[in-house]
Amino acid sequence: MDITKFSKVKLLALKEDLEKQYADFQAQNLKLDMSRGKPAGTQLDLTNGILFTLTKYITEDGVDARNYGGLDGIPEAKKLFSGLLDIPTEKIIIGGNSSLNLMYDTMVRFMLFGTGGNTPWSKLDKVKFLCPSPGYDRHFGICEDLGIEMITIPMTEHGPDMDLVEKLAAEDPAIKGIWCVPLYSNPQGIIYSDETVDRLGSMKTAAPDFRIMWDNAYGVHHIYTENKVKDIFTVCEQAGNPNRVFYFFSTSKITFPGAGVALLAASPENIVEIKKHMGMQTIGHDKLNQLRTVTYLKNPEGVRDHMEKLAAELRPKFDVVLETLDRELAGTGLAKWTKPQGGYFVAIDTLPGCAKATVALAKAAGVTMTGAGATFPYKKDPNDTNIRIAPTYPTYDELKIAIALFCVCVKLAGVNKLLETAE
Amino acid sequence: MDITKFSKVKLLALKEDLEKQYADFQAQNLKLDMSRGKPAGTQLDLTNGILFTLTKYITEDGVDARNYGGLDGIPEAKKLFSGLLDIPTEKIIIGGNSSLNLMYDTMVRFMLFGTGGNTPWSKLDKVKFLCPSPGYDRHFGICEDLGIEMITIPMTEHGPDMDLVEKLAAEDPAIKGIWCVPLYSNPQGIIYSDETVDRLGSMKTAAPDFRIMWDNAYGVHHIYTENKVKDIFTVCEQAGNPNRVFYFFSTSKITFPGAGVALLAASPENIVEIKKHMGMQTIGHDKLNQLRTVTYLKNPEGVRDHMEKLAAELRPKFDVVLETLDRELAGTGLAKWTKPQGGYFVAIDTLPGCAKATVALAKAAGVTMTGAGATFPYKKDPNDTNIRIAPTYPTYDELKIAIALFCVCVKLAGVNKLLETAE
Repeated sequence: MDITKFSKVKLLALKEDLEKQYADFQAQNLKLDMSRGKPAGTQLDLTNGILFTLTKYITEDGVDARNYGGLDGIPEAKKLFSGLLDIPTEKIIIGGNSSLNLMYDTMVRFMLFGTGGNTPWSKLDKVKFLCPSPGYDRHFGICEDLGIEMITIPMTEHGPDMDLVEKLAAEDPAIKGIWCVPLYSNPQGIIYSDETVDRLGSMKTAAPDFRIMWDNAYGVHHIYTENKVKDIFTVCEQAGNPNRVFYFFSTSKITFPGAGVALLAASPENIVEIKKHMGMQTIGHDKLNQLRTVTYLKNPEGVRDHMEKLAAELRPKFDVVLETLDRELAGTGLAKWTKPQGGYFVAIDTLPGCAKATVALAKAAGVTMTGAGATFPYKKDPNDTNIRIAPTYPTYDELKIAIALFCVCVKLAGVNKLLETAE
Repeated sequence: MDITKFSKVKLLALKEDLEKQYADFQAQNLKLDMSRGKPAGTQLDLTNGILFTLTKYITEDGVDARNYGGLDGIPEAKKLFSGLLDIPTEKIIIGGNSSLNLMYDTMVRFMLFGTGGNTPWSKLDKVKFLCPSPGYDRHFGICEDLGIEMITIPMTEHGPDMDLVEKLAAEDPAIKGIWCVPLYSNPQGIIYSDETVDRLGSMKTAAPDFRIMWDNAYGVHHIYTENKVKDIFTVCEQAGNPNRVFYFFSTSKITFPGAGVALLAASPENIVEIKKHMGMQTIGHDKLNQLRTVTYLKNPEGVRDHMEKLAAELRPKFDVVLETLDRELAGTGLAKWTKPQGGYFVAIDTLPGCAKATVALAKAAGVTMTGAGATFPYKKDPNDTNIRIAPTYPTYDELKIAIALFCVCVKLAGVNKLLETAE
């Protein structure tokens, strides 16, 4: 039943009913958190073996991993990720425990030193970045920190709106790049189509140093079906833009978020540029943790087996979220949402102007959601519709209650909005 | 016997003798390395227990160290270093595995964002830094990478030449700071006197955002006697310059160079500034390695006990270097050197214009030294005299041979130089 078509009388009756349901939840004194993309303790337990896996400290090229050295990572780590992600080892640098850190530092290098012989971005009057949205708040945080102006690009079911991306990139030399989460995008779980990847890698850009920040955060994080995105390196190379893409990955959501291993991949020319400055920044990242990670995960097959275990833990959580949304909201006209095949989130769009109110209602009843707007540049959702649901951290039982309450909040906020104009 | 007073005839006879000794070393086909301040494998073995020490992953404030979070470090790590270094926990941020990385990132923040509300350094025409020399090549590398002009400051036995430091800092607002290794300076092992610390913390500076980069790399790395440097924070605070100092430390040479824990300490106001940007750069550093480190070292007393074990390993190596220098070079007039009480190096000054030649001779006979000049800005030793000896990495037996050869090289280069003008 399409609630958006209800009469005022019917809306008022529904409101009364929803308020009663809401009060029942309030009476439970809930304290639940669906705000961040953190694994639950039970999921982390599946990886505890890694803590006790290290029995040697000499790498396969004879280096003592306890000592200094190894700026770009140990060979066995490069090999593992090369096999897993289909990227030649020459393009790979292994970092510390955080791919976000690698992204931030990459943007800092663009600011201070420029890239490809072009003017450092900090010397330019204005630098802009394309931000497909809803997107990852921490990408936008980097731009804000560095004073880079963000341009919101709407998402389609195949990735960013490429007509708009191509138009803007072609006409404005101040636009220096784009943030992308190509597989299971944060928060919608969208998979970039081959055409999207083709157009990103080959489009004309007014800036010669236009760069794609390719955050493949969920590259092997399948939940329902296994999916793959077209190889961006090949596309860029074939289009004559070999230096356009900077690729990021990490084991934060494979092993432990606090103690994973991060990766940066780029063209050989870019790697030279990166290492020139990275070599001044550090003597090398934690090689023992690299060795620990490789020893535990063994090889690409080992990673895939491990991810299947994690998926088995996550699947019931995604199931209960998606089933509850279906049962409570399908056909009401009050919300749309995506059914991700992997990743860490479900994104929902409420009626325009209802996201903030929905999140506030949930909060007041003890359920913390990601702040409404957080998935947009400057935390400003132009239509106030998008809410990110992070099902991974709560237990199944907590999640079941939290998502049921959330649906009541979506409906209540929606009905309140409809009543503003109902006759 | 003072060789610098030898006649030409005596010099020629000595040269012949030295060349014979040198040829004997060459015949041994040596391949030894005294170039970098790396612990030997046998020293690292003393810390292997840390690899198997981790039995829990919940921190004392109930945080799961496996998961995301904890930007500035786990409380037990802050407590350990607070007790060890006498710095309140509020001033401490725990970093990743590299204090160099923390220093680089601190300088990057000065460049991009400025500090204390002053103009970002990257927006200024010229930024200069005072570089007490001989000093740590990687400090100078950071300045060079960031385009900061370096001004060489001579070292005295009490630290940098403070008359010159005060004069330059007072008159030139482009001078934004100074690099300091206050205890067992790299490479001379000099201990900053109380007066030096007082003057650094209280001097007038033309730049309101003059900053001291206080790299206490060898803060607990005693070899012969235990020494301590006056507390720079207290001095700065009492002089009304509470935000002047940024303090760095790490366990790289306490546990493992490749997998230690680094620390940055600063005033509360500076900490706010740092965390604002660091919070955009990372969600947090490796908390499991922090927990591993604290579990292994236990408390400040535990660190001191552990350092005594390492000192017992290092002492014979420093002994053989210092004894050989004494036996072979004392009174020759060909070299001066320091007798460090701790740290990682012995620094020697040859006759003017002989350092490069000495290092080249050693190299040609199979012993790699730190490149001559490396301890000065732009790798330019104005008098070509300083050579850094790093006794920690070779075995005792290797070191014994290497330092003996080195003394022959010092003498041979010195005699060759004297012969240029001998009559």
